[in-house]
This record gives sequence, C-alpha cells and structure tokens, in this order.
Amino acid sequence: MGSFTFLDLRDRFGITQCVFNRTNVDNLKEKMNVYHKLKKLGREFVIQITGIVKERLKKNKKRFTGEIEIVSQTLNILAKADVPPFKIEDDTDGNEEIRLKYRYLDIRRSPVKKQLLLRSQVARVLRETLWEKEFCEIETPYLIKSTPEGARDFVVPSRMNPGQFYALPQSPQLFKQILMVSGMDRYFQIVKCFRDEELRAHRQLEFTQLDCEMSYVTQDDVLETFEDLINVVFKKTTSYELPRIKHMTYEQALRDYGVDKPDLRFDMKLIDINHILKGKGLQLIDKAESILAIKLGKVCLRGGLFSTNKKLKNLEKLVKSQLIKASGLIWLKLIDGKFYSSFKKFIDKEILRNWAQEMKARNGDLICAFAGTSKNIREQMGTFRSEIGKQLGLSHPSCGLSAIWIVDFPLLKFDEEKGRYVSMHHPFTSPKEEDRFLMKTTPDKVRAKAYDMVINGFEIGGGSIRIHEQHLQKELFQLLGFTEKEIYEKFGFLLNAFKYGAPPHGGLAFGFDRLCTILGSMLGLDYNSIRDYIAFPKNNQGRDSMIDSPNFITIQQLKEFSFTSFK
Amino acid sequence: MGSFTFLDLRDRFGITQCVFNRTNVDNLKEKMNVYHKLKKLGREFVIQITGIVKERLKKNKKRFTGEIEIVSQTLNILAKADVPPFKIEDDTDGNEEIRLKYRYLDIRRSPVKKQLLLRSQVARVLRETLWEKEFCEIETPYLIKSTPEGARDFVVPSRMNPGQFYALPQSPQLFKQILMVSGMDRYFQIVKCFRDEELRAHRQLEFTQLDCEMSYVTQDDVLETFEDLINVVFKKTTSYELPRIKHMTYEQALRDYGVDKPDLRFDMKLIDINHILKGKGLQLIDKAESILAIKLGKVCLRGGLFSTNKKLKNLEKLVKSQLIKASGLIWLKLIDGKFYSSFKKFIDKEILRNWAQEMKARNGDLICAFAGTSKNIREQMGTFRSEIGKQLGLSHPSCGLSAIWIVDFPLLKFDEEKGRYVSMHHPFTSPKEEDRFLMKTTPDKVRAKAYDMVINGFEIGGGSIRIHEQHLQKELFQLLGFTEKEIYEKFGFLLNAFKYGAPPHGGLAFGFDRLCTILGSMLGLDYNSIRDYIAFPKNNQGRDSMIDSPNFITIQQLKEFSFTSFK
Repeated sequence: MGSFTFLDLRDRFGITQCVFNRTNVDNLKEKMNVYHKLKKLGREFVIQITGIVKERLKKNKKRFTGEIEIVSQTLNILAKADVPPFKIEDDTDGNEEIRLKYRYLDIRRSPVKKQLLLRSQVARVLRETLWEKEFCEIETPYLIKSTPEGARDFVVPSRMNPGQFYALPQSPQLFKQILMVSGMDRYFQIVKCFRDEELRAHRQLEFTQLDCEMSYVTQDDVLETFEDLINVVFKKTTSYELPRIKHMTYEQALRDYGVDKPDLRFDMKLIDINHILKGKGLQLIDKAESILAIKLGKVCLRGGLFSTNKKLKNLEKLVKSQLIKASGLIWLKLIDGKFYSSFKKFIDKEILRNWAQEMKARNGDLICAFAGTSKNIREQMGTFRSEIGKQLGLSHPSCGLSAIWIVDFPLLKFDEEKGRYVSMHHPFTSPKEEDRFLMKTTPDKVRAKAYDMVINGFEIGGGSIRIHEQHLQKELFQLLGFTEKEIYEKFGFLLNAFKYGAPPHGGLAFGFDRLCTILGSMLGLDYNSIRDYIAFPKNNQGRDSMIDSPNFITIQQLKEFSFTSFK
Repeated sequence: MGSFTFLDLRDRFGITQCVFNRTNVDNLKEKMNVYHKLKKLGREFVIQITGIVKERLKKNKKRFTGEIEIVSQTLNILAKADVPPFKIEDDTDGNEEIRLKYRYLDIRRSPVKKQLLLRSQVARVLRETLWEKEFCEIETPYLIKSTPEGARDFVVPSRMNPGQFYALPQSPQLFKQILMVSGMDRYFQIVKCFRDEELRAHRQLEFTQLDCEMSYVTQDDVLETFEDLINVVFKKTTSYELPRIKHMTYEQALRDYGVDKPDLRFDMKLIDINHILKGKGLQLIDKAESILAIKLGKVCLRGGLFSTNKKLKNLEKLVKSQLIKASGLIWLKLIDGKFYSSFKKFIDKEILRNWAQEMKARNGDLICAFAGTSKNIREQMGTFRSEIGKQLGLSHPSCGLSAIWIVDFPLLKFDEEKGRYVSMHHPFTSPKEEDRFLMKTTPDKVRAKAYDMVINGFEIGGGSIRIHEQHLQKELFQLLGFTEKEIYEKFGFLLNAFKYGAPPHGGLAFGFDRLCTILGSMLGLDYNSIRDYIAFPKNNQGRDSMIDSPNFITIQQLKEFSFTSFK
C-alpha cells in the first residue's frame, strides 16, 4: 500500500499503463477496496478504471500509447477471465489450429488486430477515393444462377421452387455489365465472392473483391483511373509512393521473366542462349528444343549463397523438385577470371567465355540454364527465378515495391483436355480491334483488351474492356463451343440487354484480401496466408472451427428442401 | 439543314439538351455526315458527341441539367437500340413483371435511377458518420452454421464435407458479439442477410442491414449514438432535421396506440371507456372483456371522409375485414350539438354525452370503438388507427417525420404453439437489472434492455444491450427450453468466449432497404415496395426473372454435392 501498483490495460488502440498509488485515493475505505480488487485481478480480466491521463516521464516509444499513463482512482471488475489456452502476446505459443478455434482470443493479439484494422482502413480509403471519382456503390444479388464456367459454384436449394437452386456469385461480372447497360456509368462494390475450390494459403471459399466498372472508356482510361486509386491507397495507408506504373505486354513478360506476373524488384531476365550453345556437340543441348539462362549476381563470392559445391548441389535439387520440375541444372560460374561449369569437361573454354560475355557476367556471378521444350523451360525458369529471388532476399518487403500493368493478354487458349478454346480471362473480354480479323482463322493469335495489375510478383487485380456488341459476343460464345441453346440459357439476358443500346464499357476487380496482405507487408506486418487478414476465416478443409461449420442440418430442414435421400 | 436540330441526351445525371446547327460545323462534308447520322438516330441509341457546354437562354428548372445545353459539333453512334418493350419515361406503361425482366431498361428511368443513387448516397453518409465515430467496418462470414431459431435458414451443401451444410446468415449477431469479446470495441457493417420466408412487399429473401455493436456502453449510450447517426443521415440526404427522438415504453405504446411501432404524426390515442359504457345494460358491452375507442377529428362535417351513412358503412366493412378482424364497429358522432350513434336506440343520451366528454369530442368528430378481449381489440384498434391515418392523409410523407425509441420491451413471450417461452427479440438480449429477480418466478414480466427505432410507423432499426455473462446466458437458454446438449451444439462457442472476459456490449441493426424508402419518400420519391430500392430484386415468388433464377443445375453438380436422389 505504501508503493505504486502498475497495470497494463489493453484496448483497441494498444496497451496503456495505469498507475495506482496511495496519494490519489481519497479515503481509506476506497483505498482498501481498490487494493483488494487489484489483488484479485488476473490476465484478460475486463475492467473499468477512472483516473487522469498524464504524460509519462519515461516514455515507451515502442507503444502507440506509450507516451501517456493513467493515474487511476477507482477500479471496477466488469468480467473475470479463465486462463487462455495460448499466450495472448505478439509472439504466441498457439498453433494456427487452436488460434482459429479461439479466434476471439487470437484477434486480441496486436498483430492480428492491426491486420484487421488495416483491412478496415484500406476499405475506407478505397471507398473515399472512388466516391471522389464519382463512382457509386451498388449492391448486386448473392442468390443468383449457376453458370458452370471456370470454377465450381456453391449452390443454394430453393424451398419455394423444389428441385431448383440458386448459386452464390463467383463475381458480380454480369450484373456490373448490366448496370452499365442501365446507365449507371461508374460502379463499384466491395463484395464477397464464392468459389468451391480446393483451398490453398491464398484461397478461401469466400473472399472479398473490389469490383469496378466504367462506361465510355478506353483501356487507357481504366488503367489510369485505377493506377491513381492504388497510388492513393498506398500513400494513405503505408505512406509509400508508388512509382509510375509501366505497361508490359504478356508476351514480353513471358519472354523475359517466364511468368505473367513478374516481380520486377530484381532483374535476372531470361536470356536465350541457343545461338551460343547449340551445335557445339553437346548432345543434351542439341536434343533440347531450347535453352535459357539467368544470371545470379555475385552469389559465388566467399560467403555468397552459392559459393560452395554443397550449396550448388542444393540448387540442383531445387531445380529438379516438384516446385520447378526441370530436367536438370546447367551452370557456369566466373571466379577470379576462371570459369567453372557443369559442362567443363565436355566443352571448349571459348564457348564458355562467349556465354559469359553474352550474359555480361562478372566476378562471382553464377549463370543457371535449363534445357527442354520451349514452353516448359520458360515456365520452369520463371518459377526458379522467383524462388531464387526469395532465397537471395530480393523479394522481401523491405526491397520496396514494383508495380506493373501486364497488357495484351491472348483472348483465348486451347484447352487440350476439353478439346476446344477457352477464355484466358472470361468470355466477356473484348478482342483488340486490330486482331479481330484473326478470330475466324487463328483465334489463339487474337490479343484481348485485358490487363492485370501485378505488384511484387502478385496479381492483385485484373480486368478488361468488355464486348458490348451482341453479334461479337455471340461469335465469341460460338468460338468457345457453346451451342445456341446453351448461349441463350446461360447468357440470354446479357445478349438481350445489348439489343437495347449498350455503351462501350470496361473495368476490373482487385483481390481485396491479397491487396491487404501487400499493404500490410509494407508496414512490417508478417503474414502466412490471406487468412490473417480475414476476421473469421475457414481452415484448409473449408471449415470454420470456431463455430464448427459446416454441419448437419435437421431432418425437418432436409424435408423442406425436398431432399428425399442424401448420401 | 438551315435550322436547328435538338436532341435529348440522357446520362446518370439527367437529360441534357444538345443542339446541332449549321454555323458550328466546320466543313460541308462533316456537316452532311452529322446530318445523315442524326436522321438515323432512334430512342435509346448510345451516342458520343463533342461540343461546347453553354448556359441556356431559356432554362428548364425542372431538369437537373436544365440550365445548360451542348452546342454540338460531331456525332458518333456507339450502339443502336431496338424499340424497348415499355416506355422509358418517368410514367411508364410497363407493369412490374416486365420491368423486372428488363430491369436494365427500368433502371434507365429517372425515378428508379434516383432511388438507386439515393441508396448509394445513404450508404456513403452512414459509413462516413460511423468512421467519424471511430467505428470500424469488419466483414463477417457468409458461409456459417444453421441454428434454426426464428426464421428459416438458407443452406449451402458442402462438397468437401458430404452430407453437411453451411447456412447463410440471417444476421451477423453472434459474430459481432464475438468481435466485442475480441476487443474490436466499435464495429459496423453494411451487410446482406438472408431469410427463407414467404415474401411480401417489404420482405426479400436477401436484404441489407446496417449492423452495429459497441463495447462498454449503456442503453442510453447506444440510443444517443444512433439517434445522432440517423439525424446526420436525414440532414445530409434529405436536408430534413429530425426533432429530438423521445423514448416511449413498449407498455405505453401498446396502451396508447395498440402497436409497438406507432406513427406519431397524428394523435388518435386509444381511450379506455369501460367505466363509461359498462354496466349500463348493453349486453354486447357487458359481455366483452374490454372496450376501447379512438376519436377521428371533424371527419363528419359536410364533405368529410365519413360524413354520410354510406361512408360509415364502408368503415364498418373495413373493421370486419381480414386486415383488422374486429367483431364490429361501435360509433358515436357529434354534429351541431346532436349525438348519433350505433347505440342510439338502446342507450341513455346522458351516457353518450359522458362518452363524448371523456373523448373531448367537438363538432364533426367521429368516435369509433371496438369491444372484445383486451388483447385482441388493442391490436385491432392499432391497425384500424394506422389504416384511418392513411385514409385521412395523416401519414403521407408530406406530413413530416415522427421518430421515436420504443424501449423496455418484454424479454420473453409465451408461445402457445410451442408451449414454451420464446425471445421477444433474440436470446442474447439482456434483462433489466431491476427485473432479474423475476426470471425464476414470472419470466414474462421481465423487461429487456431492448429498443426499436420507429419512424413514421415503421420499425427501421432495433437492438439491445446483450448478455455478457456466461451463467446468465445459460439461464436464459434454459428458460427457452434448450437442453444442455442443444445449448453447446448451437452456442457453445459464444458461452466459451464469455469465459475469457467479455466486456458489456450492445448494439443494433437498421433495415437498410427500408431506411432508404423512408428517406426517399421525404424527397418525393414514390415507392410500392422495398424492391424499388434494390438494384436486382426478386419477385414475390423469390425469382429473379431477369436472369431466370433459381434454376436446375447439372447432374454433374448434383453428384458432386452427393445428392443421390432429388424429388
């Protein structure tokens, strides 16, 4: 009683220090009362304090509320608490399973709380910015129709229409196009979408999308509008200024980086070295359709990531792993003027020198090459590049930001399994005017007015200028193998709408959960999956383990939906 | 060619006049070109014009864009249009069925467009105001668990967990309470909710709710916070200032108005006249449990709504109709000092005079009374009062606004059919401290910390202070007839959460669709149902006739969900 008692009070804004001492309690009885309550307190108790907010002499700069303390007079215990099943601290001892089950306790932890508050702030900034640009938010329905294309739909049995089902939307695509036909020329919505697909770290059965559409626009109008939006969001939530977002064609992205979502924070372009190595009597190379190489700078110097043979062996393992699936690693390193190579025994030194020259290699550089079919090794090397980027620490959030628009996607690709063309994005994407003449002859050569925004190697958004002409839309549906009947059953209302005057329109959608993870990473918020940014996520089995869902329903319910038998 | 051509251009902001004349087209070729295109134009064509915005000499004040015109130079037809199936004008010739099927055309009509834009604006103002108050928006999941209580759930079969189902939320009630336990002390969300119920004009299978919750609050804190919110919304969207919102107990509302959502723009209180008419030898009256009357002012004067016997007959019909279901109408009118009454033959004039005095009747007034059981006639008279209010034009939007908080609802009511108590609001509502001692003895006498906001006779929102103590919540569940097993199966996670320290909390939810209809009516926007404020509503059969949903799904889909047989 003669001394001070300190107490950490946690609320939404952080942890604040409260001090009780004998001089600020007016009378003895009240003092004893407070003292007894203080002795009873435990972790996670919910309390009410009255006191005076004062500036601290010894400030704790690490805490958001570390510059003040509360000199406390009264104390009231509002709710007691059992000992939580895991530590409610920044570093917890609970595994993800138990933290999901007790999600209400996990959210009390500062990192999770910050992630959810950031998400809330991002949504706010997106809305404020779009309102400024005269977009209006319009809600589209959740109980819609199943149009099995692409991903699998969730369906909802209709009690009033036995045997019939609604479907939950995979995106509001058709409704937003219908809104353009309605004259609502700038639409947006932050909206839940649903896909019944196998789950991975970056997939949830229900996820959130920022969905936008504009009328009377060209592709450049759309890109400019949303580049600006993303700029504002980065600035307001992370204080980070995005550099001007460049455009790169899909073709160029694949050629130089092997993927359509390159991380441009590091260079490491894919270099074609066919002309260097082919026809030099190397059987492995001559047999292959193509050979590609990338250069890893200075990694072979003493202490470098691949400075020893053992480390190189590990690299070979990686190359052959399930992740990359290349047939093998061909390498060349340059150390103190000498060349070392997986080829060395079989190849003329002059060729190695040419190769190194072509790659502009310098002391300590390691050059990695794959041989194989043109298509495969490009993709394999793209994955390899991004993996190496990670290992070299080149794609860490502290390396800053690289944002790019990937444009000129192909309209279609041929699906071997289905034996027909399928849409690269979706069947409402407009072909580029100058390529339309190819639609009848070589459809896979047609480029689309489609675009993706890629930040740090993640596709965070994508969209297109849409088709707004009935005949073109029908032509495309036919190209995709739909019969007349299927076209009208599934998309009749859209074709019908186009009859009554549809403005040219286009838009895009951002993956809101993923956008939050990238913004969070710029603020130093670690994350393992998009789950971290979702208040009540499902686990990898699609279950919400807190509420124990999905679950069985009553026989009465089954009957009402006319389920007569259910395996 | 020597004269002007005028053209009405419609966009999201209204209809703008465009003028083509020969002096502002630079060369003859272009002039002929424009002229030919003008001749080809039809209604609903989508066009692009370049020109100069000028102030009009003759302004059209009725149009939002009526003060300007566009002196046009070029014209480009972007899309042609067929003749629409109904007139796209403020007054249309299309019935609701066809307008729902062609919703994209209906939305082009100015009244519908204004309704959707108002909705968008209301959502914006709600969000801005709640952000100001440090609420943060947090998304709760859509795929949750079925807990059949109250309304019927929509269910979603889980492919990954055969035989099990998710349910779509009827409200995020439990999740927002869990968020309070998580320390997110001010939450809101504008969110879709789902109820599989029979449809009426003011019901949709999916509807939108403004859902809010706060920690560490009393009932008065909540009422003050949301009175302020509603004030701001009315002011910013309709320029209308709400008067200070008074509180009225549930008991008083039922006593004086026969309903728990009285329209207070007109008085017409229910007056107990048992002491006047009972024991006077009137068999009908003496047999009845109770007799109640209301006074309709001056309706019997010449030209008044009930001035003739024929009109009184209609009133009698209304009273006995399905809407009201009263046994009959007892009336008294006072005209030029004389009394007329349905009783006149049987009753002493002095009694009529007493009755008239009790009701403070004046010349031309009509007094209507019902006799019957206490409970029934109060409800019947409440409906009668609101119906008469409509007929007398007392509840027209032009009569202004009346807003009130109804408080002190009963916690429970006895459900004869189920043979047990059911919650008046929901089982998470806290009883009033001073009534807790009644829970074990006379549960139906316990009042709850529950409140509804009523505007112009419509309940637009409601909520409560919640239970935050495990033992009290359990006690209430038991009172509602749940077994221990059911309690833990359905609400175990909530009871569990309360173990780890739950703050006192409470909140409410506003019916967003209905709020929009009331705001719209203050702006002179007519409406027939909440459908008018929903971009893509379902019809009374729960169907979206534009996309033709619900519908059958493929056998492949049925199989994937393990539906082995489906009636």
